[in-house]
Amino acid sequence: MSSSRFITLEGGDGSGKSTQAKRLVAALKTHGIDALGTREPGGSPGAEDIRHLVLNGDPGRWDALTETLLMFAARNDHVERTIKPALAAKRWVICDRFTDSTYAYQGAGHGLARETIRRMEALVLGDFRPDLTLIFDLPVEQGLARTKGRGKEMRFESFDTDFHERMRDCYLAIARKHPERCIVLDAAADEDTLAEAVWNMIAKRFKLG
Amino acid sequence: MSSSRFITLEGGDGSGKSTQAKRLVAALKTHGIDALGTREPGGSPGAEDIRHLVLNGDPGRWDALTETLLMFAARNDHVERTIKPALAAKRWVICDRFTDSTYAYQGAGHGLARETIRRMEALVLGDFRPDLTLIFDLPVEQGLARTKGRGKEMRFESFDTDFHERMRDCYLAIARKHPERCIVLDAAADEDTLAEAVWNMIAKRFKLG
Repeated sequence: MSSSRFITLEGGDGSGKSTQAKRLVAALKTHGIDALGTREPGGSPGAEDIRHLVLNGDPGRWDALTETLLMFAARNDHVERTIKPALAAKRWVICDRFTDSTYAYQGAGHGLARETIRRMEALVLGDFRPDLTLIFDLPVEQGLARTKGRGKEMRFESFDTDFHERMRDCYLAIARKHPERCIVLDAAADEDTLAEAVWNMIAKRFKLG
Repeated sequence: MSSSRFITLEGGDGSGKSTQAKRLVAALKTHGIDALGTREPGGSPGAEDIRHLVLNGDPGRWDALTETLLMFAARNDHVERTIKPALAAKRWVICDRFTDSTYAYQGAGHGLARETIRRMEALVLGDFRPDLTLIFDLPVEQGLARTKGRGKEMRFESFDTDFHERMRDCYLAIARKHPERCIVLDAAADEDTLAEAVWNMIAKRFKLG
């Protein structure tokens, strides 16, 4: 059995990453690998309570710094109580969003200084990072069109197109800066094609049969 | 009219600081000074929502780092949306607990490294500090005896005596380290005596009539 891995999926709203996260967990199980699917913000009872605070209410409910502190509070609870225990039990962890989302939303989107997020990341996570990050890239208009009609937890999705463009650029910049950790996927592909591409990458990267 | 001031009151549970905070606000108003009484965690609508998360539930609901991140999230909201606007409007702000409580509870009480809190304080508050901090000092057993029967938001009060002893030592250490900002008061005195002592200190410090 291969050792445990921590894999995160990142991208804008409507990029299909949540669906792909579920399919990846199922594919790993098919190959005999015990995998846990989780998400941020949330993923542990306390972090889900914080998620509720962050994702509901008016767009101006929190400023970017307060929001980032709430995100890292949720992240610390999630890492310490869900992710690390699962990895210690030799399970793979597949997580829908992680710290890169904070750089994209609260940083590039809301304008909080990247250096502030970097210092908070160092303070909270030390050197704990994903083994692999899949970035689902999609033109903003296409992503937003797909999210129409979802209806709940829309606080972030109500920001304007330019906000989402800055987020997209941020994800692509992260991928260029950390090529050893990040892979960019073309999320415009249909669901089955994308799932196959994801699986092929995972199998190659981690030498699965 | 004197310029605005930011005054915090600190101390263990049952030290009488909340009562004294209210009396100080009233005394300032009697002397023609517009004062806002506020508290932490809380003091703004968002921070009060975070307060509810932090103060309720099992003692082990949050680890020390998550709790500290939640406290600073609430503090940032409170400072940006309540305290700084009030000071800008030339009002005095009298706050029941502030960052020193984080050093005492999450630091000395729960064992989070002082340096971690210091770095988070620098990240969130920059160099924003109270003009004056009144520390209400009382033997732990006396304080706990006074809080018996309050009944709600008891998460912190349910920790053991040694926890509260470490908190008390922390407050006294802060006072020694920052003598220009902190004044220690003997909180064993009766309410009226204490209120008079507080007023005399404030009047002398800020040259009020």
